[in-house]
Amino acid sequence: MTFPKKVTIVEVGPRDGLQNESKNVPTSIKLEFIHRLSLTGLSVIESTSFVSPKKIPQMADHSDVIENLHREPGVIYPVLVPNIEGFNDALQAGAKEIAIFGAVTETFSQKNIHCSIAESLERFAEVIAAAKKHSIPVRGYLSCCLGCPYEGKVNPEKVKTLATKLYEMGCYQISLGDTIGIGTPHEAQKLVQIVSTLVPVEKLAAHFHDTYGQALANIFAVLELGISTVDSSVAGLGGCPYAKGATGNVATEDVLYMLNGLNIKTGVDLKKLLDAGKFICDYLGRETQSKVGKVHSLS
Amino acid sequence: MTFPKKVTIVEVGPRDGLQNESKNVPTSIKLEFIHRLSLTGLSVIESTSFVSPKKIPQMADHSDVIENLHREPGVIYPVLVPNIEGFNDALQAGAKEIAIFGAVTETFSQKNIHCSIAESLERFAEVIAAAKKHSIPVRGYLSCCLGCPYEGKVNPEKVKTLATKLYEMGCYQISLGDTIGIGTPHEAQKLVQIVSTLVPVEKLAAHFHDTYGQALANIFAVLELGISTVDSSVAGLGGCPYAKGATGNVATEDVLYMLNGLNIKTGVDLKKLLDAGKFICDYLGRETQSKVGKVHSLS
Repeated sequence: MTFPKKVTIVEVGPRDGLQNESKNVPTSIKLEFIHRLSLTGLSVIESTSFVSPKKIPQMADHSDVIENLHREPGVIYPVLVPNIEGFNDALQAGAKEIAIFGAVTETFSQKNIHCSIAESLERFAEVIAAAKKHSIPVRGYLSCCLGCPYEGKVNPEKVKTLATKLYEMGCYQISLGDTIGIGTPHEAQKLVQIVSTLVPVEKLAAHFHDTYGQALANIFAVLELGISTVDSSVAGLGGCPYAKGATGNVATEDVLYMLNGLNIKTGVDLKKLLDAGKFICDYLGRETQSKVGKVHSLS
Repeated sequence: MTFPKKVTIVEVGPRDGLQNESKNVPTSIKLEFIHRLSLTGLSVIESTSFVSPKKIPQMADHSDVIENLHREPGVIYPVLVPNIEGFNDALQAGAKEIAIFGAVTETFSQKNIHCSIAESLERFAEVIAAAKKHSIPVRGYLSCCLGCPYEGKVNPEKVKTLATKLYEMGCYQISLGDTIGIGTPHEAQKLVQIVSTLVPVEKLAAHFHDTYGQALANIFAVLELGISTVDSSVAGLGGCPYAKGATGNVATEDVLYMLNGLNIKTGVDLKKLLDAGKFICDYLGRETQSKVGKVHSLS
């Protein structure tokens, strides 16, 4: 037990969140949203994705977003890149940190990024090599670490193998995604225990979705094992998890409420975070998915 | 660490749940609802409350409910009683198990049950003595164990004192309520650690609300300390927790999903439970508050 005294929250709302929202959000609103998040004390705000606009129209303005960011000191604004073309575009727009994303099951890899796992690793190698040349840190995502919508339960040994590959290829951190929110606390702990035999626990992040209501329990369970980076999405953005295809990101406000109660330092101000969540929910015309946010909206 | 292999779920939907729903539910629907719950494998279903119909009109048919229960073998149907008059009515209706409910803060005691804590203990003593005479087991509830809407944070030592009193007076189990859902996992653990120095952990139950999204994490945290009875409400009934005054009961489906994932035996069938939740939500014309229930409703 090495319960962390400090946790870094990786806010994924502007990317993983918005890309799953059906209403198109103009660049100016995204920039204002990211700016408000920047003022909460968050140190990592994933801001956009350099994927094909045909595949994800919501992210088509990725270059505009990055070029016009109002960067706050001490805050990094990573962007997702699927391949070397995406990397080059991100670099040109001025991105200073990137993330790559792979899956741990063949079927999800094919459906989500349209290549085999082996092919995805080749793409990542190319991107990581280019990033290294420009001294750009690379974060690695692995999806379906606790279960796959097509293949069911996933063997943690498989996750270990891929996480280790990404780590050895140069990713400074591996984010373990429970993409469909299917895991429970002991499964989450087992995953971290097994992966951390080869990748140090301080290089791992928990990216748990709340589709089945388990995310906070799972996060608490892996904090008990020393996990000190947690991905979440303000207002549970991207997740009204009940619309088909949406993702059910755990809400940053609820994560922060728990971390505060556990006396874990995050540097994030809950009130400001709630206001940033309200800003984007008001724009989207939808109710927050954060329970803390719902209480807040009544007060 | 004495992680339980088996957990008893105390289903409080027909009582704690329905009493916070604004739509009046006819007795026949309540009976059908309880009957469906009886067939899920649940062994404890809190069925009604013998409070004054003036205070809680939803429970005005308490005698009818108890007299007409379709009792399944192996299932108990406790009822809440506030005082000796309520006990006598419950007894006459044929109740075979009762629960009493007190608060750990003076203000909540006054607002909720209209007497001081000392006065409430006198009432309980009278009820417990009468129950003993009729060999009726008595469960004790304590509300506001992790925080009070009027007095803020609560000292666990205070909870320990009152829980011990109820236990010594003859309650076979003490249910520790986080009535406003304000607690986080280490607070929940600390509560159980302190109370269990005087009341054996197997005589304690966790009754955690999900107002701030923390209930499952808190439940997981106290399972780690050996808690093996958990109160919950199917469909999160009683809790759209965002309507003022509603309670935010944690949904039984979500608790069960977690317990199943933890390989903890409950004897409860998730599919049947989801159907019982759907039955009552359809009647009430409201969406389930269970995340598992929401996924289920799409499939």
